[in-house]
Amino acid sequence: MSGEQELGITESKEHATGEWYAELVQKAGLADYAPMGGFIVTRPRGYAIWERLQNYLDGWFKQTGVQNAYFPLFIPESYLEKEKDVVEGFDPEVAWVTQGGYDELEERLAVRPTSESIITPFLAQWTRSHRDLPIRVNQWCSVVRWEATETKPFFRTKEFLWQEGHTAHHDEEDAIEEMETRLEQYKRLYEDVLAMPVLSGRKPEHDKFPGAHTTTSVEALMPDGKSVQGGTSHYLGTSFAEAYDVTYVDEDEKERTAHTTSWGLSWRALGALFMTHSDDQGLVLPPTLAETQVAIVPIWDEDSKDDVLAYAEDVEADLKEAGVRVELDDRDHRNPGFKYNEHELNGVPLRIEIGSYEVEDDELTLVHRPDGEEVTVERDGVADTVSDHLDTIFAKLYASAEETLEGEIREAESREGILGTIGQHGGYVKCGWCGDEECEEPIKDAIAAEIVMVPKDRDEEPIHDECAICGEEAEETAYFAKTY
Amino acid sequence: MSGEQELGITESKEHATGEWYAELVQKAGLADYAPMGGFIVTRPRGYAIWERLQNYLDGWFKQTGVQNAYFPLFIPESYLEKEKDVVEGFDPEVAWVTQGGYDELEERLAVRPTSESIITPFLAQWTRSHRDLPIRVNQWCSVVRWEATETKPFFRTKEFLWQEGHTAHHDEEDAIEEMETRLEQYKRLYEDVLAMPVLSGRKPEHDKFPGAHTTTSVEALMPDGKSVQGGTSHYLGTSFAEAYDVTYVDEDEKERTAHTTSWGLSWRALGALFMTHSDDQGLVLPPTLAETQVAIVPIWDEDSKDDVLAYAEDVEADLKEAGVRVELDDRDHRNPGFKYNEHELNGVPLRIEIGSYEVEDDELTLVHRPDGEEVTVERDGVADTVSDHLDTIFAKLYASAEETLEGEIREAESREGILGTIGQHGGYVKCGWCGDEECEEPIKDAIAAEIVMVPKDRDEEPIHDECAICGEEAEETAYFAKTY
Repeated sequence: MSGEQELGITESKEHATGEWYAELVQKAGLADYAPMGGFIVTRPRGYAIWERLQNYLDGWFKQTGVQNAYFPLFIPESYLEKEKDVVEGFDPEVAWVTQGGYDELEERLAVRPTSESIITPFLAQWTRSHRDLPIRVNQWCSVVRWEATETKPFFRTKEFLWQEGHTAHHDEEDAIEEMETRLEQYKRLYEDVLAMPVLSGRKPEHDKFPGAHTTTSVEALMPDGKSVQGGTSHYLGTSFAEAYDVTYVDEDEKERTAHTTSWGLSWRALGALFMTHSDDQGLVLPPTLAETQVAIVPIWDEDSKDDVLAYAEDVEADLKEAGVRVELDDRDHRNPGFKYNEHELNGVPLRIEIGSYEVEDDELTLVHRPDGEEVTVERDGVADTVSDHLDTIFAKLYASAEETLEGEIREAESREGILGTIGQHGGYVKCGWCGDEECEEPIKDAIAAEIVMVPKDRDEEPIHDECAICGEEAEETAYFAKTY
Repeated sequence: MSGEQELGITESKEHATGEWYAELVQKAGLADYAPMGGFIVTRPRGYAIWERLQNYLDGWFKQTGVQNAYFPLFIPESYLEKEKDVVEGFDPEVAWVTQGGYDELEERLAVRPTSESIITPFLAQWTRSHRDLPIRVNQWCSVVRWEATETKPFFRTKEFLWQEGHTAHHDEEDAIEEMETRLEQYKRLYEDVLAMPVLSGRKPEHDKFPGAHTTTSVEALMPDGKSVQGGTSHYLGTSFAEAYDVTYVDEDEKERTAHTTSWGLSWRALGALFMTHSDDQGLVLPPTLAETQVAIVPIWDEDSKDDVLAYAEDVEADLKEAGVRVELDDRDHRNPGFKYNEHELNGVPLRIEIGSYEVEDDELTLVHRPDGEEVTVERDGVADTVSDHLDTIFAKLYASAEETLEGEIREAESREGILGTIGQHGGYVKCGWCGDEECEEPIKDAIAAEIVMVPKDRDEEPIHDECAICGEEAEETAYFAKTY
């Protein structure tokens, strides 16, 4: 039994969230640290979850008019410079290729930090008439941003996997609708696939994507009270279209400038997922994303082995036929206790235990991850029963995350109120805000919390009449939180 | 009708293959040239074909024990240097990142030209006991090789998309079996999905992958008589395992060194596909890979429009239900002739024409791409009929490529014979070869043909007793050809 102790996470999620997360990622085989700081290796178990996430989102994109494409990894410096906000925004964190083979390059090439600067010129090339619009392209790729911070797998890495969608439209209305569609799909991904409720809103003006007219995001609350930006969708207005000349001849034969959007969701969604549901036993996954949804663990002695195994194989066959991702763990060199711990560490949502009693009574023992709820059910109709239990497990995960989120949105009416509330509880604090970036500064300086969003509706009345920081007239409601 | 002339390819495939190919790629919307020489943009129509190809190959990989993962884009120079053959082989064509943000990096980072040097150290980390083997990981990604040649979309580009598989095994036998399995899967991809027969063989010693014990490849013959290396599978022996310390404790408690393999297939498969089947009307695709397998073109006048359209929609519904990828082209602003040309340009394998006659007689007119064969069939049972015709179209494409290949393998017994035969006909010339690289040189120098493969079986008797070039004793049979 000595191996069992090694399987759980030794750090405590509650008391040492950062250390616990780092240990979880490695012990559950999700990722390893690369030799260069800021880079990770996504291991098969982690990557399989990314692939499942991709399948959902990519399917929704394609159903709503998006086509995948692939654009170059490198962007010539002169292209990056065409949109001035992008240069200012990304220049400090670009990785530059300066040598090809033994030769110095004439022009430096940026490893893409995001691809507006190389994609928009092609949207321009492909757009002639109003009939060519809308154009919607997306690519799944990696991007590089040279930030000098501590590596946190899936949260903070210099290279990360994501999708970036880029679209061009006739007018503002179409483009804003596009921005909203993608934000809704990100929300749906979190809620229906990751079992995580999220908030959605707009970034304050001073924190928009460089060159954007409007930046929207979904925000997820982590168990340590910090907010994670879980996906962003930008209405870029005509700034990129003007810089790269995306124009079209309209029905009335007049030339008009297109309106563009871009939107991206990265593997940070995985980080948020792992962080939210997992516990001190290891990874917890919703059945939607688990590679193995059900692990069958037979418990035998010499006399019962044949019967137990035959019964278990039969259950496995029924579940497979019903499309359940099931694994019969019939390893001989491991005892049931070790297997329980290992499947818990790896995030298998449902365990089925089968011993002599179950065989005799035509029953099964089901055990839920993460709360350990144990139920005895009839063997007959196992596929429907398991499907119901997987739904229940998803619902439990969602309800738990929802309860956390609901209790963590508070109000404040003064600077001290903001500092005290976030300092004590974490979570979100909403307050009246004048709209001035300077009023965010003292909060940032004191406790590293910032305005993570304001309401999407620009006409929404602020919750209080006065800015909680400066006391001037409030323009909107600000949501302060610490962030990842 | 003026628009119709623009749709076909103006260059001739037969007389100006290179120019024809370049025009095909752009007019059929497969790719565009990026602003930096050597890079291309893969457009949605091209990328969708890549995605279908990926689905086949990725499915077979997963069925045979391969797990996907993702490793860093960059490789520290010191890691690349650990396997000396790799450095020598790839150093001249590495793109180097030397700056991150505003800072010079302490160590240059190679943009991966291939990932053995960053993946093998992790195979080492994950391999402890014999139970951990075999390990098989694969990644779908892009790699960069800074070659200074003319850009040829999907054939010659500095960045290209591919998959690279990397595995570690107990011993030579297991590893060689792995190499063979992947080569067989590449062959199957070409034959069963791309409708292209291929040769498979081993690379001569002097043309192996750097550091490999054995390099095998599939070779496809292009219509201009040149050979394309369509995928490679390497048995790396223990050279990488030793350089990066991939060892395991065997059942007998002894430490042993693992044997590794790597294998890759790039978007060059797309180039070979486009080049092989397409014609002066445009793209030709096998039904396996076509985004639209069937285009229905209704032909109406004012009186017949409602009836024709209703009939066509009904046919479309039947085909959709049967899982056929069908598109009803009911655009009002285009005439049928334009539509025919456009679907031909875009590589739709089967066209269904529906006019008043077809409606009256409960029939359909089917037209095959590429040979234009036209058949009138009964409306009833359309799904089965279409499925049969799609199979026939696939068989036609394969048969045509097979006929070309079979006629293009010739023998020679002298240097003049090799030069004359390849010079006159192109294709493959097989001959006796002493095994010395020096005997390849005069052929390379004279007509830029090289030894593309030798038989996989090292014990196979050469077809002639003497080396066709030097006249010494022949060790094996060499296949000479010009290459892409």
